[in-house]
Amino acid sequence: MSRQFLAEGIELSGGDYGIVAVVAVVALAALAIGYVLLKEVLAAGQGTAKMQDIAKAVQEGATAYLNRQRNTLSIFGVLVFLLLFALPADGWSERIGRSVFFLFGALFSFTIGYLGMWLATRANLRVASASREQGGREKATRIAFRTGGAVGMFTVGLGLFGAAIVVLAYAGQAPKVLEGFGFGAALIAMFMRVGGGIFTKAADVGADLVGKVEQNIPEDDPRNAATIADNVGDNVGDCAGMAADLFESYAVTLVAALILGSTAFGGDGLLFPLIVPAIGVITAVIGVYITKSRANESGLVTINRSFYISAVISAVLCTIAAFVFLPNSFSGFGQEFASTEGNPAVIATVAVIIGIVLAGVILKLTGYYTGTEHGPVKNVGKTSETGAATVILSGISVGFESAVYTALVIGAAVFGAYLLGGTVALFAVALAGTGLLTTVGVIVAMDTFGPVSDNAQGIAEMSGDVDETAAQTLTELDAVGNTTKAITKGIAIATAVLAATALFGSYQDAISKALAGIGATADGVKSFVDTIVSPNTLVGVMIGAAVVFMFSGLAVNAVSRAAGAVVYEVRRQFREIAGIMEGTTRPEYGKVVDIVTRDSLRELATPGLLAVFAPIAVGFGLGTGALAGYLAGAIATGTLMAIFLANSGGAWDNAKKLVEDGNHGGKGSEAHAATVIGDTVGDPFKDTAGPAINPLIKVMNLVSVLIAPAVVQFSIGPDASLGIRLAISLVAVVIIVVAIVVSKRRSTVIADTPAEQQEPAKTA
Amino acid sequence: MSRQFLAEGIELSGGDYGIVAVVAVVALAALAIGYVLLKEVLAAGQGTAKMQDIAKAVQEGATAYLNRQRNTLSIFGVLVFLLLFALPADGWSERIGRSVFFLFGALFSFTIGYLGMWLATRANLRVASASREQGGREKATRIAFRTGGAVGMFTVGLGLFGAAIVVLAYAGQAPKVLEGFGFGAALIAMFMRVGGGIFTKAADVGADLVGKVEQNIPEDDPRNAATIADNVGDNVGDCAGMAADLFESYAVTLVAALILGSTAFGGDGLLFPLIVPAIGVITAVIGVYITKSRANESGLVTINRSFYISAVISAVLCTIAAFVFLPNSFSGFGQEFASTEGNPAVIATVAVIIGIVLAGVILKLTGYYTGTEHGPVKNVGKTSETGAATVILSGISVGFESAVYTALVIGAAVFGAYLLGGTVALFAVALAGTGLLTTVGVIVAMDTFGPVSDNAQGIAEMSGDVDETAAQTLTELDAVGNTTKAITKGIAIATAVLAATALFGSYQDAISKALAGIGATADGVKSFVDTIVSPNTLVGVMIGAAVVFMFSGLAVNAVSRAAGAVVYEVRRQFREIAGIMEGTTRPEYGKVVDIVTRDSLRELATPGLLAVFAPIAVGFGLGTGALAGYLAGAIATGTLMAIFLANSGGAWDNAKKLVEDGNHGGKGSEAHAATVIGDTVGDPFKDTAGPAINPLIKVMNLVSVLIAPAVVQFSIGPDASLGIRLAISLVAVVIIVVAIVVSKRRSTVIADTPAEQQEPAKTA
Repeated sequence: MSRQFLAEGIELSGGDYGIVAVVAVVALAALAIGYVLLKEVLAAGQGTAKMQDIAKAVQEGATAYLNRQRNTLSIFGVLVFLLLFALPADGWSERIGRSVFFLFGALFSFTIGYLGMWLATRANLRVASASREQGGREKATRIAFRTGGAVGMFTVGLGLFGAAIVVLAYAGQAPKVLEGFGFGAALIAMFMRVGGGIFTKAADVGADLVGKVEQNIPEDDPRNAATIADNVGDNVGDCAGMAADLFESYAVTLVAALILGSTAFGGDGLLFPLIVPAIGVITAVIGVYITKSRANESGLVTINRSFYISAVISAVLCTIAAFVFLPNSFSGFGQEFASTEGNPAVIATVAVIIGIVLAGVILKLTGYYTGTEHGPVKNVGKTSETGAATVILSGISVGFESAVYTALVIGAAVFGAYLLGGTVALFAVALAGTGLLTTVGVIVAMDTFGPVSDNAQGIAEMSGDVDETAAQTLTELDAVGNTTKAITKGIAIATAVLAATALFGSYQDAISKALAGIGATADGVKSFVDTIVSPNTLVGVMIGAAVVFMFSGLAVNAVSRAAGAVVYEVRRQFREIAGIMEGTTRPEYGKVVDIVTRDSLRELATPGLLAVFAPIAVGFGLGTGALAGYLAGAIATGTLMAIFLANSGGAWDNAKKLVEDGNHGGKGSEAHAATVIGDTVGDPFKDTAGPAINPLIKVMNLVSVLIAPAVVQFSIGPDASLGIRLAISLVAVVIIVVAIVVSKRRSTVIADTPAEQQEPAKTA
Repeated sequence: MSRQFLAEGIELSGGDYGIVAVVAVVALAALAIGYVLLKEVLAAGQGTAKMQDIAKAVQEGATAYLNRQRNTLSIFGVLVFLLLFALPADGWSERIGRSVFFLFGALFSFTIGYLGMWLATRANLRVASASREQGGREKATRIAFRTGGAVGMFTVGLGLFGAAIVVLAYAGQAPKVLEGFGFGAALIAMFMRVGGGIFTKAADVGADLVGKVEQNIPEDDPRNAATIADNVGDNVGDCAGMAADLFESYAVTLVAALILGSTAFGGDGLLFPLIVPAIGVITAVIGVYITKSRANESGLVTINRSFYISAVISAVLCTIAAFVFLPNSFSGFGQEFASTEGNPAVIATVAVIIGIVLAGVILKLTGYYTGTEHGPVKNVGKTSETGAATVILSGISVGFESAVYTALVIGAAVFGAYLLGGTVALFAVALAGTGLLTTVGVIVAMDTFGPVSDNAQGIAEMSGDVDETAAQTLTELDAVGNTTKAITKGIAIATAVLAATALFGSYQDAISKALAGIGATADGVKSFVDTIVSPNTLVGVMIGAAVVFMFSGLAVNAVSRAAGAVVYEVRRQFREIAGIMEGTTRPEYGKVVDIVTRDSLRELATPGLLAVFAPIAVGFGLGTGALAGYLAGAIATGTLMAIFLANSGGAWDNAKKLVEDGNHGGKGSEAHAATVIGDTVGDPFKDTAGPAINPLIKVMNLVSVLIAPAVVQFSIGPDASLGIRLAISLVAVVIIVVAIVVSKRRSTVIADTPAEQQEPAKTA
């Protein structure tokens, strides 16, 4: 590896500033286009008064949740801001920039999530309304996809704008400031993914357990007190959480590329990583506008076509940009690169294309493993004939298998870019990441599609104002959403691996720099970072893998607990409020929304604290080698676990849809009951634990990069102190342990709820 | 780290030979005591003719399976023997020794498995018979535990004897020869675990799906054509597979300690690692003989008491041995260690005690998470009231959580030994492994207990010759077996981590030595092994983690496929053979045994080939750094996955038992049905995929150590050839891909079985 120690005093030329300014303008244009799309969506018809009533209740619930989440996260954000401020830095400008841009990253992440929710809670009504009109299928698809397009534009626009501003304002200290920006984005995204994920699945599972299982009433039945909460959940989880998550993926991947670029080439290295996503903005606009569903074509085919067309355009434009903006030999970057072999334009082109192809392959792979028309889901559907156990086992097999292949594909992309890059290997990996970014606009559009359709279906069902054909249209859209959601998760985790691999390099840089600061030789660096065969490192790898298991277990458990509370409340309402079952009295929807809001905000603390404090405990306690191992273990196991959880969940959900479409006995059969069990198991897998692993990995990586100088400072040199290191580590461990004990205690509280409050109402 | 390159020309003094000879005698004594215990078991009463008939059928089925497995494995063994012979070696004596002792390891591993099966298929009848007598509970417990004791004695006796012989005969090249011995043991154990695991669960799940679910007849009902196969499965999986597995754990851990010991101290380092397990033999004998169940005491309490008493005795004796046989300063090992700080006797004592304490903590942790009397299983049982989905989710949470804590405990043990060891850190880790070994005798005894009781219950049920009280006794013993089985798996995986960490050191030694052989400097070694932050290494970690997921998925899938074949055959018999349901005609038990035998032997090929060829593909394809990363990823993820699978499976099984004991509605309730689903999901988790991960890790580690010199040879120096490396890697990849495609195709064949052959018989 030939990375130099972090170049100080990076300077941009006047022409470079011009290019960055153009990028910033492209970013603003993306925001403007997002606004146009938003206006178009809002202009659509809003259906009947009854439909509007329901939509309003969902809007209010979602807004109330996000407002309360904002308050909770603000406190946390301020604390981290102060901690960040206290960490070692090179001068005040860097210290202030890093902390301030942490706040910007956090703010942007929250804003994009809020906006996603805001728009989705308005679009759902309009999609439901459009499905009732002449040519409803095309109109509904169009509104749903335009909604996604708006959110997609805001995601890429804000991400690119933030990065461009950092580069313009902080060219010299850009890397450190970018770390702050990325960290803010990742941290808030992780909380929004976890909180929203718990909300949506607690409401969903709770509603199903009482409604479908105990009272035998259909999904989204207005007599179920948890239905509004369920629909609110789609918006705060699948819309707000997802949008924040993809914004974070975008921001952190871009940050990683910019850091690596500046490390390798100084100011020159900051330009190309900004140009590639700017191209992505342009192709995303094309992708969104060309999405038109043809007659008799499934929504998935339409969406895939847009994706592939925009991916090809991205590849072509990026190739042109590489040959225009990059020299044909490394000496073009300055005399110090005269001996570096290879053609930068070719390397950059191939790296970016690796990223774009990776997105396409993940799309295909995930479509294969979770789509209703392919072998795996059909097989899971078939196993429903031998009962729920075989459904669970076959779904788990599908999850394991698809995780392995997806991880291998991601690994191959990393390795390919690494080999290709030669002396700038890590930068090439980061560039592959930016290639992946060019697809994010379309990906967000694809993903938002799902929950908006799901919600539209809920509004239609609850209002009773939608006829058979329209209902059929909405069901179709919803099924497409299951697969697009799984694809998004696959792409998100791929960005995590690429960004993390690149950040791994920053981690080593941070350590090298810190060591150089206290006069250690470059030779001491390698042995300090440790070889992988040291037991120290191996223990780190094990702890990293363990944290992923812990985090997943905590998230699943949180859903179970919060769902339990929902079950008791819905049962209580059926028992105590007369006339609900007959439809003469409206259940108290708001109470359930309040309970889930309270519980999911409470539950997100433990996994969140684990993510922030585990690397601190390992780094200060066991040293930099173990921390490197920790990151490697967390990335590897996290990747596999995230895809396993997302794809087995997607496969179960769609296997249920297969049966509901009349296969293996159809609705109401034993086979259907078996797939409902599979789907319920899959719910927290695919919508809570799985997707939160992506921001988790990045948060842990960025925390490690940020604390690296402090770890080195207390490890060798004049400030070395085992006492201080162990004390910091101990504090981190204590925080984690207390958080876990508190959440354990909560589960006992629920288990201790008096039996009469747990009692199900008599079935009608 | 201060490990020297492998010391050549290790010599043992005459006194040292004497000590090794004493160890060999202790090993032979263990075999003799095993024989005495065996005789005692065989001398017990054999019950009624009907019971003997059934036991005979089980014996014949199990013997037939193992004979066919022997034939299959022989071919594979010869192939690996030849490959091993072709690998680079230092001279003919080492080359021959390594290959010949590979055969010995393989033979011993198979023999101990066969013996375990042989004795268990005889003991089951005698336990069933004893339960009918006066004081049946004590007598039955005693026979079951003595059976385990015999197998335990054979396990430790053969393991210790093999290692002692290698040391006596090959002092100079002992490490290389020991690698061969360990590899043979691990490879065969892996196949026996996988094959036996598939057999037992395919028969069990298949029997349940038709018997319990479709025909509504109880477990072990003689009208079910799969019952004999189910009972055969307990013997070839839980007895033969488990015994081979624990033998392998014993052998490989011992091998790792001997290799590390000789690397650090030459001949001196070979003695203490042999003395510790010899002490373990003595305490195991004590443990087995003091096991007497007191009145009104659960079997688990009895077994735990024996375990703790023998653990304490081990600790005391090992401490004495350390101070008698080891010097009080490192200079006692020779002038070259004069500057090494620390007291060898103290280090060795504490390391061994760390291992013993680790076994105790795992016992406690596993007991807590899978025992019926503690919170976790009670909680899983409680969730049965809200259906199968919540049972699955809570069981998965228990699995995740217990995996994390167990992995952290194992990690802490590794790290503790590592810190303690100072300059002989890896040897200290290996010594902790030998400490763990002192408990293996009792552990095998505990584990064999389970399947023997399970089988005794089957014989009792099928014969109808056992009264209510006796049946109750057998059910109780079976429940204890569930927890002891989970404990064994925890201990086995702990040995894997300790051995693998130590072998990791051998891996680096092998590379260092190979590099030194071609004149590379010691400085080149570190960078060649790579630092952990290289993307190359990170990709290796990801592939290592992926192989664990793949292996688990393949094992679960193999069970599903083989169980499917059983279902069709049992249905066919119900449909075509008149009088089965009325009990007037005997079903064709042999046919089902034949089908499962054929399928499980066929199915074990793919996971087996994956284990052997994946490290070859990574090592030659991506280099030594990636291979090191691969091992780290496989160890970390493998540990968590193995414990997750074992403990969630154990928790589900015991939650079912809780409900069957009359909680939450009892047998036949909705809650019971929910826990039956949980148990069925858990079956391949805990008895097929989970336990096979332990030998998997060791096989992959030993393959890596063995191929390391060849990888280096083709990577740098005069023989360097990227072409050869890629060719070898490609061949390995092709073998894996073909194996996977073939097993995929098999699943299509079953799915294509004509519908009329799949049809369930009409229920009575």
